[in-house]
Amino acid sequence: MASTNKPVGKVLYIASVVPDLLRHVQKLLPNVAISQINNNLFNENQVTNELKSELKDAEMLVADPPLISQLLYESSLPLKVVNSTWAGIDAIIKNLDKSKGYPKFTLTRMGHGFGEIMGEYVIGHIIATERRFKDTYQYQSQHQWAQQKLKSFRPLSSLNIGILGLGQIGNTVSKYCKSLGLTVIGIKRRESKSASQYIDQYGYVEELENILPSCDYICSILPSTPDTRNLLSGQILSCCSQRKPVLINIGRGDVIDEQTIITAIQNKWLSGAILDVFVTEPLSESSPAWDLPNVTITPHVSGPSLSQQVAECIADNYNRYIQGDELQYQVNWQRGY
Amino acid sequence: MASTNKPVGKVLYIASVVPDLLRHVQKLLPNVAISQINNNLFNENQVTNELKSELKDAEMLVADPPLISQLLYESSLPLKVVNSTWAGIDAIIKNLDKSKGYPKFTLTRMGHGFGEIMGEYVIGHIIATERRFKDTYQYQSQHQWAQQKLKSFRPLSSLNIGILGLGQIGNTVSKYCKSLGLTVIGIKRRESKSASQYIDQYGYVEELENILPSCDYICSILPSTPDTRNLLSGQILSCCSQRKPVLINIGRGDVIDEQTIITAIQNKWLSGAILDVFVTEPLSESSPAWDLPNVTITPHVSGPSLSQQVAECIADNYNRYIQGDELQYQVNWQRGY
Repeated sequence: MASTNKPVGKVLYIASVVPDLLRHVQKLLPNVAISQINNNLFNENQVTNELKSELKDAEMLVADPPLISQLLYESSLPLKVVNSTWAGIDAIIKNLDKSKGYPKFTLTRMGHGFGEIMGEYVIGHIIATERRFKDTYQYQSQHQWAQQKLKSFRPLSSLNIGILGLGQIGNTVSKYCKSLGLTVIGIKRRESKSASQYIDQYGYVEELENILPSCDYICSILPSTPDTRNLLSGQILSCCSQRKPVLINIGRGDVIDEQTIITAIQNKWLSGAILDVFVTEPLSESSPAWDLPNVTITPHVSGPSLSQQVAECIADNYNRYIQGDELQYQVNWQRGY
Repeated sequence: MASTNKPVGKVLYIASVVPDLLRHVQKLLPNVAISQINNNLFNENQVTNELKSELKDAEMLVADPPLISQLLYESSLPLKVVNSTWAGIDAIIKNLDKSKGYPKFTLTRMGHGFGEIMGEYVIGHIIATERRFKDTYQYQSQHQWAQQKLKSFRPLSSLNIGILGLGQIGNTVSKYCKSLGLTVIGIKRRESKSASQYIDQYGYVEELENILPSCDYICSILPSTPDTRNLLSGQILSCCSQRKPVLINIGRGDVIDEQTIITAIQNKWLSGAILDVFVTEPLSESSPAWDLPNVTITPHVSGPSLSQQVAECIADNYNRYIQGDELQYQVNWQRGY
């Protein structure tokens, strides 16, 4: 329990564009020396000698995925632990070079708080859909008291949501949905043992066509892996044509291709969609997705790295590392998440 | 436990414009005879002889407040229990005539499910405010990937909400807020003993200026009574000028007058408002409230009487009455709620 003002433990290096991160971390670790790397030293294509020199003693580094991707096989640095500032790490994993093996450092990703803010996103957009917030704002701008048009809606307690992706974020999203009365169907792999008090029933990824027809909402929080890519592309959503659910995608865009989304809306397999992630981001200005009926597009903001939450996660892992405890949110290089 | 198809118990009379109510109640009480009164028999100004004749045996009646108001002193009818289809009963109470005493029948109001749907409204509009759904929809319509503008926001766990009105609805609203991480401040009367597991701390109506400055949201669910009218009118909200909360009003409009709302927004005592109820409804097309910055206007739809939920409440009270149990959601004529 350090009570002096002298720095204790290791120096922590921060190389990130998350706004104000140094200040937030410093507040949580007031006695730790922190070295902030100037963003100007980053070069999109290579690790410059100047940056290498700045990081030459860096055993613990906090950094954004584009920089981490460049450091994967940078053997001249003493890196032991690298904390990524994002929840998703596919931007790093795709730069692995199997011929070189796996990186020597331990990678952790951001975990803290993402479930909560992504849960807020899901709940907020479901309520906005059921209570027609877009129409509400429109009527207001017209000074129109549209009570007859807005007074009928489905209460959340009458709705089923199927959740694909039952990790920590999926668990918190489930918790939020269940707290507000939705019936939660967890969709897991047959082999998976996951069990959560917030999930009312389980279905299996291997039998999507049995489970999707019961859903009023389908929420994907899946990461991008060989198993998940295009899982919802093609004809599979045609099984939804009775209940016509709304698709929410806050995982990764490549779980479904854009043409399938367009087809599913046009064929009324889906009654709508709430899309935060896309195969190509930013979504092209000319994409037809922007104007699809009952589709809400958000610019990958369901779970951004909020400075305070990133700082809490870093401070926690710093303390664990110094005390020799297991780190939180460790990435398994083999599995890729 | 009736298992025959013969009607059992009393005949239930329904005189309501809630859509499809007969069908919903019939499903829940399949063996009960239900008599639906034709809406054409209602007259805004008086109880017609034809209607009286239809209701001449009505011991139990389900009706909307405008009709109930006309029946308060209709001594020719055998009314024992009247179930109002709305949660708010001020439209009935204001027609009491003290010179005639209190009505002879027991009045119940709708209780079932209002807390849940009003909680959904509160949560949905808080998230829409923090995550700027209005701007989000605007950017989408412009095909604009506005990530930089939308990626910073306050997580709900960083916000305090003060709740005025701690009855059953207030308790459910508190529960929903707490489930999603907000800190809930219950604002009660000094004399009140109310205590809820969903409320983190209490403040007192008698000392609003001590409690409002801690709030990021102030949510009024207060009914209209002599004690609550204009509680927030005048200068009181000037105490909020530091934290600049958002006012949510889903109780009754007369807790604050329109001029105070305009002043509070213009003087930045409030950073915004979400208003579902007004002193005069419908809100006049020429009201300046429609165009106030950061103000969302909805046409009294936070807690409408949804057919299914009204039916559940009626069926429950019917069964209680037949079995001689205490009715739910009984109105106390003296207190007026």
